[in-house]
Amino acid sequence: MTKIRARKITHPQKAEAGFNINGRIWIEKDGMLYLGWGRIMLLEKINEFGSLSEAARSMKLGYGNAWLWVDSMNRLSGKPLVEKVAGGRNGGYSRLTPEGKKAIVKYKKLREKFMDFLNQERYPNLRED
Amino acid sequence: MTKIRARKITHPQKAEAGFNINGRIWIEKDGMLYLGWGRIMLLEKINEFGSLSEAARSMKLGYGNAWLWVDSMNRLSGKPLVEKVAGGRNGGYSRLTPEGKKAIVKYKKLREKFMDFLNQERYPNLRED
Repeated sequence: MTKIRARKITHPQKAEAGFNINGRIWIEKDGMLYLGWGRIMLLEKINEFGSLSEAARSMKLGYGNAWLWVDSMNRLSGKPLVEKVAGGRNGGYSRLTPEGKKAIVKYKKLREKFMDFLNQERYPNLRED
Repeated sequence: MTKIRARKITHPQKAEAGFNINGRIWIEKDGMLYLGWGRIMLLEKINEFGSLSEAARSMKLGYGNAWLWVDSMNRLSGKPLVEKVAGGRNGGYSRLTPEGKKAIVKYKKLREKFMDFLNQERYPNLRED
């Protein structure tokens, strides 16, 4: 679309270099939020800690919200992403299913493409006008 | 965590077709929101009605908020996007500057590219697993 000169980083163009394109991307299922950045972080933390409450705490997310996110992902996905495993000396733990691990990989690939898109776009330089 | 079976849907492929990628994109200036979809709509309505209050009303946006949005765009842009013209029988009106009209065009071009990006991406088909 527009002809863009390479951004100058140092001084004189500072004000114009201040423009930046930003955005968010998420997956919906039947019009409802299925996977977004926060939910993917939660899945990663569950994978790391093996515990929903520790995962939530590490993100400063309330346990109730974390539970709702997981429940929503599990419902919207064809197969659950997180499962509760009963037993063990601590009375059970939470873990990702293979489907949950795949969801992380898929979302991150998509997000990477989106980051590439954002990085390759430039808000048109006002100088051109 | 509850194990949930896939929702029953009439047609077998429908459930997988239900995944959809969505997102938002905006321009920041020095880390602050400069132009997003709502602000661009407001600019268009100002252009249509020649009045900030009518533009706001048509979007069901409070006048105070509309004013803040315009003020923020005018401050962050190098040159104002909206100007108030005094006088006339109705006591003045609001109109877009040439800069304001260009902002609409530029944002819309960017948004169109983003829509192309969203449309060309597919949330990976779960079948593949």
